[in-house]
Amino acid sequence: MSDRTITELDEAECLRRIARGGIGRIAYHSRYGPEVLPVNYQWHNGAVVFRTAAHSALDEDLQTGITGGDYQVAFEIDHIDEAGRQGWSVLIQGPAHHVSEAERESALEAGVEPWASGERELFVRIVPSRVTGREITPV
Amino acid sequence: MSDRTITELDEAECLRRIARGGIGRIAYHSRYGPEVLPVNYQWHNGAVVFRTAAHSALDEDLQTGITGGDYQVAFEIDHIDEAGRQGWSVLIQGPAHHVSEAERESALEAGVEPWASGERELFVRIVPSRVTGREITPV
Repeated sequence: MSDRTITELDEAECLRRIARGGIGRIAYHSRYGPEVLPVNYQWHNGAVVFRTAAHSALDEDLQTGITGGDYQVAFEIDHIDEAGRQGWSVLIQGPAHHVSEAERESALEAGVEPWASGERELFVRIVPSRVTGREITPV
Repeated sequence: MSDRTITELDEAECLRRIARGGIGRIAYHSRYGPEVLPVNYQWHNGAVVFRTAAHSALDEDLQTGITGGDYQVAFEIDHIDEAGRQGWSVLIQGPAHHVSEAERESALEAGVEPWASGERELFVRIVPSRVTGREITPV
């Protein structure tokens, strides 16, 4: 038996936590099955915004084959205190949208800076269609 | 331009990092599309082992409908130094296997303890079929 309890976080609380920006993990169906990658992101105009390289594996995996078509992804953030055996996680699910030239100016405002070297000129926006979260705390 | 470089980690190095156990994130295709959840895990006999509740959403999502059939998942670990803009991540992809009664004794040896209260008597093993990792460091 454990002395921990799980609480669901409501949508407002989930969005409050995700709006801080930082590191999140994008999950999607790649050519090799499910895939998860950490990315640094910002929250901007109701969406997660991150940058990647055009024609990268991530870019290509997120293509639907339809211009302007969106690919269903999940984006997760968490904060885990391993020693204290407690933590929380928030998951958003929704379409990943490749930001077009016309939309770039708004995405640039998000101010998200890629860490890795090389051109990372592709902006991806994830607009949440489902937001869930949970917290494990001592009873 | 950035002063960071990305290095691929070889399989041996990836397995060395994942063998430490701790917190990882399982990603899979759920009834709502891609899903990611943090779990605490141990590495045992060449596989990731974690526990969940039987008949939980996670359990049910990982069912193939075929007894003993396995469901393709991804399992990610990472270590990110946000202030230093560096970090690494390792991804394993492979089938998630529900440990049967006959196999329980071996899984118990892994010694993985669920944090949350309630019965979490279902053991899940992920045997890697693909292992990749990368590290972002200052140049």
